[in-house]
Amino acid sequence: MQLGLVGLGKMGGNMRERLRRAGHTVVGYDRNPDVADVHSLGELVDTLAEPRVVWVMVPAGAPTQATIDELGELLSPGDVVVDGGNSRWTDDIKHAEALAGKNIGFVDCGVSGGVWGRDNGYALMCGGDAADIAKVQPIFDALKPEGPAGFVHAGKVGAGHFAKMVHNGIEYALMQAYAEGWELLEAADVVTDVREVFRSWQEGTVIRSWLLDLAVRAMDDDEHLEGLRGYAEDSGEGRWTVEAAIDHAVPLPAITASLFARFASRQDDSPQMKMVAALRNQFGGHAVTA
Amino acid sequence: MQLGLVGLGKMGGNMRERLRRAGHTVVGYDRNPDVADVHSLGELVDTLAEPRVVWVMVPAGAPTQATIDELGELLSPGDVVVDGGNSRWTDDIKHAEALAGKNIGFVDCGVSGGVWGRDNGYALMCGGDAADIAKVQPIFDALKPEGPAGFVHAGKVGAGHFAKMVHNGIEYALMQAYAEGWELLEAADVVTDVREVFRSWQEGTVIRSWLLDLAVRAMDDDEHLEGLRGYAEDSGEGRWTVEAAIDHAVPLPAITASLFARFASRQDDSPQMKMVAALRNQFGGHAVTA
Amino acid sequence: MQLGLVGLGKMGGNMRERLRRAGHTVVGYDRNPDVADVHSLGELVDTLAEPRVVWVMVPAGAPTQATIDELGELLSPGDVVVDGGNSRWTDDIKHAEALAGKNIGFVDCGVSGGVWGRDNGYALMCGGDAADIAKVQPIFDALKPEGPAGFVHAGKVGAGHFAKMVHNGIEYALMQAYAEGWELLEAADVVTDVREVFRSWQEGTVIRSWLLDLAVRAMDDDEHLEGLRGYAEDSGEGRWTVEAAIDHAVPLPAITASLFARFASRQDDSPQMKMVAALRNQFGGHAVTA
Amino acid sequence: MQLGLVGLGKMGGNMRERLRRAGHTVVGYDRNPDVADVHSLGELVDTLAEPRVVWVMVPAGAPTQATIDELGELLSPGDVVVDGGNSRWTDDIKHAEALAGKNIGFVDCGVSGGVWGRDNGYALMCGGDAADIAKVQPIFDALKPEGPAGFVHAGKVGAGHFAKMVHNGIEYALMQAYAEGWELLEAADVVTDVREVFRSWQEGTVIRSWLLDLAVRAMDDDEHLEGLRGYAEDSGEGRWTVEAAIDHAVPLPAITASLFARFASRQDDSPQMKMVAALRNQFGGHAVTA
Repeated sequence: MQLGLVGLGKMGGNMRERLRRAGHTVVGYDRNPDVADVHSLGELVDTLAEPRVVWVMVPAGAPTQATIDELGELLSPGDVVVDGGNSRWTDDIKHAEALAGKNIGFVDCGVSGGVWGRDNGYALMCGGDAADIAKVQPIFDALKPEGPAGFVHAGKVGAGHFAKMVHNGIEYALMQAYAEGWELLEAADVVTDVREVFRSWQEGTVIRSWLLDLAVRAMDDDEHLEGLRGYAEDSGEGRWTVEAAIDHAVPLPAITASLFARFASRQDDSPQMKMVAALRNQFGGHAVTA
Repeated sequence: MQLGLVGLGKMGGNMRERLRRAGHTVVGYDRNPDVADVHSLGELVDTLAEPRVVWVMVPAGAPTQATIDELGELLSPGDVVVDGGNSRWTDDIKHAEALAGKNIGFVDCGVSGGVWGRDNGYALMCGGDAADIAKVQPIFDALKPEGPAGFVHAGKVGAGHFAKMVHNGIEYALMQAYAEGWELLEAADVVTDVREVFRSWQEGTVIRSWLLDLAVRAMDDDEHLEGLRGYAEDSGEGRWTVEAAIDHAVPLPAITASLFARFASRQDDSPQMKMVAALRNQFGGHAVTA
Repeated sequence: MQLGLVGLGKMGGNMRERLRRAGHTVVGYDRNPDVADVHSLGELVDTLAEPRVVWVMVPAGAPTQATIDELGELLSPGDVVVDGGNSRWTDDIKHAEALAGKNIGFVDCGVSGGVWGRDNGYALMCGGDAADIAKVQPIFDALKPEGPAGFVHAGKVGAGHFAKMVHNGIEYALMQAYAEGWELLEAADVVTDVREVFRSWQEGTVIRSWLLDLAVRAMDDDEHLEGLRGYAEDSGEGRWTVEAAIDHAVPLPAITASLFARFASRQDDSPQMKMVAALRNQFGGHAVTA
Repeated sequence: MQLGLVGLGKMGGNMRERLRRAGHTVVGYDRNPDVADVHSLGELVDTLAEPRVVWVMVPAGAPTQATIDELGELLSPGDVVVDGGNSRWTDDIKHAEALAGKNIGFVDCGVSGGVWGRDNGYALMCGGDAADIAKVQPIFDALKPEGPAGFVHAGKVGAGHFAKMVHNGIEYALMQAYAEGWELLEAADVVTDVREVFRSWQEGTVIRSWLLDLAVRAMDDDEHLEGLRGYAEDSGEGRWTVEAAIDHAVPLPAITASLFARFASRQDDSPQMKMVAALRNQFGGHAVTA
């Protein structure tokens, strides 16, 4: 089928490639003319036959908002917009309402898979009306990995990004779990080959996983990760997961600890530990480090 | 080859079965005569030809200590004792020293795999001298899963149980990560089919893993886990992991949070939250619940 | 001076009493006619001479919004509204803007002190323009405790409630700290008189505080707090503190742990620990509790 | 009364001074002859009349062990040894048993107060037999602050150091609580005078405490603590508190978070966050920082 695809960055570009391999016709638009198939959203919409499906794959927030606003002006009743970016699920509801006023459908789709998705497939978590999702299903089928898993219609509008958000919250804690274990193994003298311990865990253990495989790959590149700094960004979903948990009074100790570890990793010095140092000095005369 | 196997419970019994399928001769001893092949450790030792390998698979602590002490009296120089139980790694060093005085070798082996190990293989993490490990290698090869992973000689005596201990610490946090995400999904209204979200994650996502597969299995049995209580034991390795981290001044926020969640799960009421309730009442006149 | 006071519940009623003791004229309105001095906001406004100061002391959210909206209709340029409730600081900015359009001033004021405030004074944290605060200063001076501390002009509009919000976040973690220590002392056999240990800490220690004094009071009423359930509500500020920290990428491990402990205290059973139990059963055949 | 005092460092020296002000006769020994009253433990013992009380105030571990061993050789039946250092409570039991074999009494005494103790008094938490404690009571009375609080006989041998250990665990979390709140206030723009917010909290608030007073003092010296590094040592009691909690299956989320924050504060770079960065790079092609 035909698909309009807005945003041809690292993710969007690979998705176009995967869809074309599957025989779909993808018309891609990007602000960067070197990668775009058309020169404007208007041209993209004009190129597609009705009912159109336009997949938005641009940064969350203002860029997604602007794109969906403009598509709302350009598209026709019966068309469907898919937001495949990392939008906050609460934005989906606003987008769906705005488009519904024009009888344009809306589907939110959380996409996981990173740079591996092009060849292995992308895991897709969708929210929206069944009728809208049905219009996009051939695209979902081409993007997802082979086999029964990798796609879910999780619920109404917002459910896809909500599920992806929680996926990422879990991801934070899984990564933190392996990272903590790795640091402890490296710190102890008794285990002399930490990389081979991780490698051995890839079969037969309770903790085998794709992230574990990636940890082994990383150590094969740089056994003690000496070329890296202990610095980790966060892309929003982890924060939103904790905020959603607070809204529902759900305790998330491990996921939140993982988010906070990232925050701390980005501080050159810890303000709060300055205060702890100051207090120790005040009551105990403990030496402080300037 | 011949192996003496002490302890034929859930783990030991399955391991005997797997080893026999691989063509090894296993002489098993257990206090329960219904499952034992011989009636005493002495008979077990007499049955084996030198140099003997005796694998101890009994509960950690006093039972393992007693078994190794008795084997120290019965075995001959050049024999090897393997402790495949869940001993604390610091015990291994004591056991190895005691046996070394009699020229008996010692290998510690952390075993992962649970009830799935008999058919899929057990992941094995070993510590000890290369010469001792070489004497046991055919047994390790039969127990481990097929493929390159699943076995590691992690370092000197104690390294096997240390690696297994950290494996379990990681396992606690991985389980906690999925569990937290699951509770949040169940708490939110927007996602209407949590089980299918988990099922979809099994392919293409960053968080795919064997534990995720098991979570789906559990929900296939009981979609909302209504038949279970939120109660989880801990078997020692999680505690030891945190203690080892404290010894090395390694922060383990996610793993420790997971351990504490288990502690809390076993309390009918939380004493510390009684104190919080009492303080709120003292300063704010907040209602308390009796 | 004259003050209009809206909301005469546990806090507002005691504040009226303290202000009257200090010689101020307080005209109080409440929906409950048994405690009100006037029968409507209109009557309250009519009773006061210009420039008026009206202190709003009603629940945060819709009740505060409705009260401020109505006051905006009734008051005159040059009057000042004080929100002394537990509003979220972001609401203050909206309230101040709406009133500024009518040349009515706005001051947000976080109030701490609980049931002890009437006699000991209330700690006050204020945000707003200096000119507006000056109009209320005699009231602040009467409400605050004696001595130099107990009142701060913390910054622009919102600063008062932000400071009070962080105060409460800190309060959560302080309470949690004493509660954790208390539970550990009660759990250990070696200390046989936990209450007297707490009592002794009231002088000379690093951890002496008003909350510690309250803990001793609580144990004097009920030595082992057996009459209480380990159940603690949260009133919003703790949640907002964590959300503000997430906005600023500030790690708050102890405060967040304290918030999550309250969430968990209110669950009859822990959904996440059901999942942990289910996973343990799946991989290890561990017994589960139904 | 007469007291032998071993160890005249920052704590011991100040305690000698306070005791002498109270009219007691203190014979002090230290390895540093510049501060010592006598030149050996033997001379110290010979100087005192029976029944002797000797207070040991040297670093925990080997120095304390060596001192108590030597005193066991020198003292007579009916004498009492007080360990006022920061020993682990489990050591007390060994010390008491060793001395009991010679009919020498033993009292463990946790001491809080830091550099402020000389003038304000030291909080004392003691463990041991009532008869032994009675022999030391005049010394305790002189060391403790005025008023009813500041001294407790907490239970049998070990109870004093156990109580002091928990005191320090609580102290860690209290300091962390203020430090987290301070960092958040400093990070937000809305509050423009964080120091004055803290100062205002000293009266009327729920969170007023001695540590809060010290925080204000520290900010009076250096408003934004710019002269300090966010680096905090830990002296053992925090670690032991967490280990004791693990032994009793008591969850200590806030105290443990505070301990881990100190561990992290001492790392130039975080190994675990290197692994997180490596994993993010592996699956997402996220940029890493070298």
